[in-house]
Amino acid sequence: MKKTFICCKSFVAKISLLAILLIGFSCQQPAEPRPDFVLVIHGGAGVIEASRMSVQQDSSYRAVLNEALATGSLVLESGGSAVDAVIAAILVMEDSPLFNAGKGAVYNEAGIIEHDASIMDGSDLSAGAVGSLRSIRNPILAAHRIMVDGRHVFMVAEGARQFAIQAGLETVDPQYFFDQNRWDNYERTRKTQLEKEFPVQSKHGTVGAVALDKSGNLAAATSTGGMHFKREGRLGDSPVIGAGTYADNLSCAVSATGHGEFFIRNAVAYDIAARMKYAGQSLQEAADEVVMEKLAALDAGGGIIAVDQQGNIAMPFNTSGMFRGYVVAGQKPVVKLFAGE
Amino acid sequence: MKKTFICCKSFVAKISLLAILLIGFSCQQPAEPRPDFVLVIHGGAGVIEASRMSVQQDSSYRAVLNEALATGSLVLESGGSAVDAVIAAILVMEDSPLFNAGKGAVYNEAGIIEHDASIMDGSDLSAGAVGSLRSIRNPILAAHRIMVDGRHVFMVAEGARQFAIQAGLETVDPQYFFDQNRWDNYERTRKTQLEKEFPVQSKHGTVGAVALDKSGNLAAATSTGGMHFKREGRLGDSPVIGAGTYADNLSCAVSATGHGEFFIRNAVAYDIAARMKYAGQSLQEAADEVVMEKLAALDAGGGIIAVDQQGNIAMPFNTSGMFRGYVVAGQKPVVKLFAGE
Repeated sequence: MKKTFICCKSFVAKISLLAILLIGFSCQQPAEPRPDFVLVIHGGAGVIEASRMSVQQDSSYRAVLNEALATGSLVLESGGSAVDAVIAAILVMEDSPLFNAGKGAVYNEAGIIEHDASIMDGSDLSAGAVGSLRSIRNPILAAHRIMVDGRHVFMVAEGARQFAIQAGLETVDPQYFFDQNRWDNYERTRKTQLEKEFPVQSKHGTVGAVALDKSGNLAAATSTGGMHFKREGRLGDSPVIGAGTYADNLSCAVSATGHGEFFIRNAVAYDIAARMKYAGQSLQEAADEVVMEKLAALDAGGGIIAVDQQGNIAMPFNTSGMFRGYVVAGQKPVVKLFAGE
Repeated sequence: MKKTFICCKSFVAKISLLAILLIGFSCQQPAEPRPDFVLVIHGGAGVIEASRMSVQQDSSYRAVLNEALATGSLVLESGGSAVDAVIAAILVMEDSPLFNAGKGAVYNEAGIIEHDASIMDGSDLSAGAVGSLRSIRNPILAAHRIMVDGRHVFMVAEGARQFAIQAGLETVDPQYFFDQNRWDNYERTRKTQLEKEFPVQSKHGTVGAVALDKSGNLAAATSTGGMHFKREGRLGDSPVIGAGTYADNLSCAVSATGHGEFFIRNAVAYDIAARMKYAGQSLQEAADEVVMEKLAALDAGGGIIAVDQQGNIAMPFNTSGMFRGYVVAGQKPVVKLFAGE
């Protein structure tokens, strides 16, 4: 009996050891201590290839991405919130003509620019979003004002514009958004009435940012001019909390870019958070499965950026490139454009 | 050694038996075979109490809910799709003045009626949604046209209205939506500039439907006039795929009703699907945890209706009542208004 008892005890001990190891692996912490802060940004995913880009274009993109990272990380470095950091980073990209957001937005079918944007605070799940917004210089600020106001989360079209104006945001003349290349692309599409593949210089994407601040809070934000030649009033995933943007301290902060219709139907941003919460996946596993398997299988081009509360970063994309970059506290900023870079 | 071996084998056998039992419980099938079809509807959740309702009001609500169930289940009975069934059921409720959708919608802050609606097909995740839509008699048909067209998923405001008109949908004069009680409520709120609790006769909610058809496909749809005295251009969860509406044959079909801002921030409809997919929860467990625990803890009043591919139904709500009903093939329709009914 004694021998038997020992045997069973030893078996139980082995099982327990295995269980501990399994739990250990599934609750794996990053090898390094949590960084003080992290900022990750994107400027859209798509046909972004070195062979299609001039040296000048390449360096222009990198310069703006670096400026956005520097501006956002300064906020975090000085103890600012993740919310303020993602706004600061996005403002730089909204004010650049290079990206399809703010100043650089593409035209819709009617030749009008309509912006979408959203922001979410992972510390309390507060959120703000605008869709089909006209003539406001920085749509991300309109989304933020809605979040701070707190009465609503999501506002669109003329009502959103009036709210933004009452909140004191800067309005601009349509001429502010004018870009000859984009207008030429619009005219070309209008004449053929077909959506075509555009050369990379007109295929700038949505912008987004996610951050972890010194207090351990997460935030995510996204801003876009939407799909080239979209129908008037069309919203993509960018203003949809749960699709283009999500942040929850208990899981992660996500900002997406890509073919918005697919991203809405697959609730992409929340899906990544849900996989971490309910399936115990790591940030990288969750992000990779959604972008590189689920969306790729649907031929839904795009990518996401994400950060979790441990400071882990994921930036998967299933296209030939994604304008992206990150800063981890105490390390040099990193900016990349192409796959395999 | 032999004894030891037997002991371990017996231990392993016991563990295996336990594992099988556990797996058995967690993958529990309904006791009855899958019904041929199921239709579940709601007409909003809120302060719905027998003591606040006249006999006449009570029977009016039940009559419309029964008519919606009869109309939708006729589609399913005759082999129609879940998509067509949820539309049929919602049309009945949109055309009734009793519910805050279609004809019976509440006024926004500007005294204007703006509708939101969405629909999703669980068989291929196709979806359509409209927000801040004016003067279209049946917003659910506009959402459906967007889904069928396929180019976009989500359209708002004037662009959505123009799309609906081009699709041949019926437009109506503002007078069509006029209701003296609702207008009086609007005027009362406008004068005080405060949102107040309204008596039950003006607190009708969003409408929604979910269905399982004979082919085993799921669909969900939701339609609303939104929050009473909302700001112009405000969207709630009803037009947000993943928040107010979601359907996926692999998990469930969900339609929500309640304080939309909270439902957006918690991605309610997709959260229920995600819990089933990733945490192995049953439909009832997932729906109860989201509505009765997560949302209730946030003081976010509302409820959801849901059905899965096995024909299981869940209808939790954390308010004093929810207009609701269901039909299971071969059984009599059931309609309920109050908690504990």
